[in-house]
Amino acid sequence: MEKETGRIEAFSDGVFSIAVTLLVLELHVPEVKEGANPIRLLEDLKLQWPGYIAFIISFFSIFVIWVNHHKIFKQIYKRNTGLMFANGLILFLVSLVSYPSALLARFYMTDSRQLSVTIYTGLFLVINLAFNLLWEQASRDKKLLRPGISDVAIKQLRNNYLYGFPTYLAAFIISFFYPDFALVICVLLWIFWAASSKKITFTESSIT
Amino acid sequence: MEKETGRIEAFSDGVFSIAVTLLVLELHVPEVKEGANPIRLLEDLKLQWPGYIAFIISFFSIFVIWVNHHKIFKQIYKRNTGLMFANGLILFLVSLVSYPSALLARFYMTDSRQLSVTIYTGLFLVINLAFNLLWEQASRDKKLLRPGISDVAIKQLRNNYLYGFPTYLAAFIISFFYPDFALVICVLLWIFWAASSKKITFTESSIT
Amino acid sequence: MEKETGRIEAFSDGVFSIAVTLLVLELHVPEVKEGANPIRLLEDLKLQWPGYIAFIISFFSIFVIWVNHHKIFKQIYKRNTGLMFANGLILFLVSLVSYPSALLARFYMTDSRQLSVTIYTGLFLVINLAFNLLWEQASRDKKLLRPGISDVAIKQLRNNYLYGFPTYLAAFIISFFYPDFALVICVLLWIFWAASSKKITFTESSIT
Amino acid sequence: MEKETGRIEAFSDGVFSIAVTLLVLELHVPEVKEGANPIRLLEDLKLQWPGYIAFIISFFSIFVIWVNHHKIFKQIYKRNTGLMFANGLILFLVSLVSYPSALLARFYMTDSRQLSVTIYTGLFLVINLAFNLLWEQASRDKKLLRPGISDVAIKQLRNNYLYGFPTYLAAFIISFFYPDFALVICVLLWIFWAASSKKITFTESSIT
Repeated sequence: MEKETGRIEAFSDGVFSIAVTLLVLELHVPEVKEGANPIRLLEDLKLQWPGYIAFIISFFSIFVIWVNHHKIFKQIYKRNTGLMFANGLILFLVSLVSYPSALLARFYMTDSRQLSVTIYTGLFLVINLAFNLLWEQASRDKKLLRPGISDVAIKQLRNNYLYGFPTYLAAFIISFFYPDFALVICVLLWIFWAASSKKITFTESSIT
Repeated sequence: MEKETGRIEAFSDGVFSIAVTLLVLELHVPEVKEGANPIRLLEDLKLQWPGYIAFIISFFSIFVIWVNHHKIFKQIYKRNTGLMFANGLILFLVSLVSYPSALLARFYMTDSRQLSVTIYTGLFLVINLAFNLLWEQASRDKKLLRPGISDVAIKQLRNNYLYGFPTYLAAFIISFFYPDFALVICVLLWIFWAASSKKITFTESSIT
Repeated sequence: MEKETGRIEAFSDGVFSIAVTLLVLELHVPEVKEGANPIRLLEDLKLQWPGYIAFIISFFSIFVIWVNHHKIFKQIYKRNTGLMFANGLILFLVSLVSYPSALLARFYMTDSRQLSVTIYTGLFLVINLAFNLLWEQASRDKKLLRPGISDVAIKQLRNNYLYGFPTYLAAFIISFFYPDFALVICVLLWIFWAASSKKITFTESSIT
Repeated sequence: MEKETGRIEAFSDGVFSIAVTLLVLELHVPEVKEGANPIRLLEDLKLQWPGYIAFIISFFSIFVIWVNHHKIFKQIYKRNTGLMFANGLILFLVSLVSYPSALLARFYMTDSRQLSVTIYTGLFLVINLAFNLLWEQASRDKKLLRPGISDVAIKQLRNNYLYGFPTYLAAFIISFFYPDFALVICVLLWIFWAASSKKITFTESSIT
């Protein structure tokens, strides 16, 4: 059976790759100042460390989201309106990442650290919900899926996103009290997802 | 028969996905001010609500336009010069969306609300005209279309865009008097288009 | 014979579509001023007309360049290093277009109109040279081309770009004395290219 | 055997083409000043020459990196988690290029020239390491590679990147003392890579 989702994937890949590449625009090159010297430039660069951290976390967040998007769409062969718009919601949220990321970079060293981390982790909580919605839309009608996909595989994919939900919710709640710890949870979750990304069993052995 | 429009679709997908992802650049992160605190940051963020609304409406507008572009090009197998330039006109207008969107965001809370909404709805009126032109170009010569496409399907696609015209025209005219209502009409039209996007009957049942 | 140039075309399409979509970033939304009203906003918008003109000319220039790129690569099946770098040069120049375009927009109403138009037309002269180089690289070794391509077709494509050269050179020289007339020549040339884009005869009738 | 890496290549092409096209945003159009005339505009433009140099070097650097990425992925048919993340690391570094490039453009004419060149060459040293890592990941498990690839070809690709390492390291170290010379080494290395890019012998003669 022919895969019908080629252009959706191409459009999604476009949005993912642009969203991830635009992040660098939030890194600001220091101004040339009177009496500038390399020591002061180094200091100016060091002062921007929250920007570098936000850039790194956001880049690999979007990258991991893309890997997961890729994995889901390997299993989807046909599309319907619900699927199109669940996917549109994911793309909307992904294209938005650079905004809370810039907010985090700018306000991390101020009194508003907690607020900026809460907004940041909140966005990833909503992205997790959108992924649950996408897989829900896709797996509701087995005719949309790859022919021969096993029920075990469908369940494993659902669980993969469902289990993410309480963790993101925890990170979101914790961000109100210990913002740094909430960021660490997000990073750990991405490492976990990256490491576990090939453990799903499918009907054919080589497909992950 | 081989589809000849692969690279046009790839290029178009590129423009659509960039246009939609660049929108986020119009959201401005508040400056760090003297005596800043989370309350003031929240207030600064709240003041930007027209920007968020413009971002959401523009994102899903372009997304719905992409879905429709996708649907039309499923039926187009060959291209000619007229088709290339009708498509170029659509891409031109889509790449332009972020400008009136930024205008709307910035002037919505000023005396120029009406003018910014009129420009915004005016652009979508022109995009509708360009879609009518594209389908006119494509369906004028049946050799350009998918072999076996029925006349009913051709007519349904034409009507889909023709019927949009009076509605966009109405929104444009209403924008002079009740700008908010004009925006609501645009959003309703997108929801209607999204919901109706699979109702077109083709010769083969599964193609929408 | 399998076409080997798929990823070059994908990468090129990416650069073309981004270059064309980034142009909108050079359009600046007017600031909200004290005592702003719709009349003043309209005046501010009108003052930006050189920016709109530059945006339109640059958009369709890149679009026509893409159409031509598309047409050339329909005939190229294999690649070598020379071809890769001739193509790289074209992409470099295309990605640069937004800079002289912004220069033109900003300085058209100043004493530097002539200089900005000269730089602008100069870039398109160089892009024409790069296209000549690309087709020279491709057609030097017939093994790179589509099997069965006729010598007539090869010559027609070469002439297409060679004939452009004196016109662009004329526009460039004229820009020193009558900048507006030079811009008109560029626009006319694009219209001519667009209109003539299907007149090339190939071995198989349907390929343009 | 079917190639499984299509979407990775599409996503990577997206990031490469955006990274390369965004570079132009670092070129700043001079402001219109009181009493502006063409002579002063020319002077303003000339003052930006480090920006043009940085733009040219960075553009062709990313282009050569893309050519190499292309060459490696011609040989990769299957993917695993390690490969995905080695590729993610390369994309991360490539998307970052515009930042040290802008730094170089802005600080080249100041006392911080050496520091900006060191950061710039340092990034390319790390990109070389990431390429070594990618090929290490891919070639560790021959099942990931193109069926029938010869051991000689695998070794040649590895050597290609391994030999780059001492040169980039040399450029990095030299940048502390003779920054201009370090930049020249980088450019020479790209020219060497471009020129040697078809000398690799594979099992099938035409694949490079």
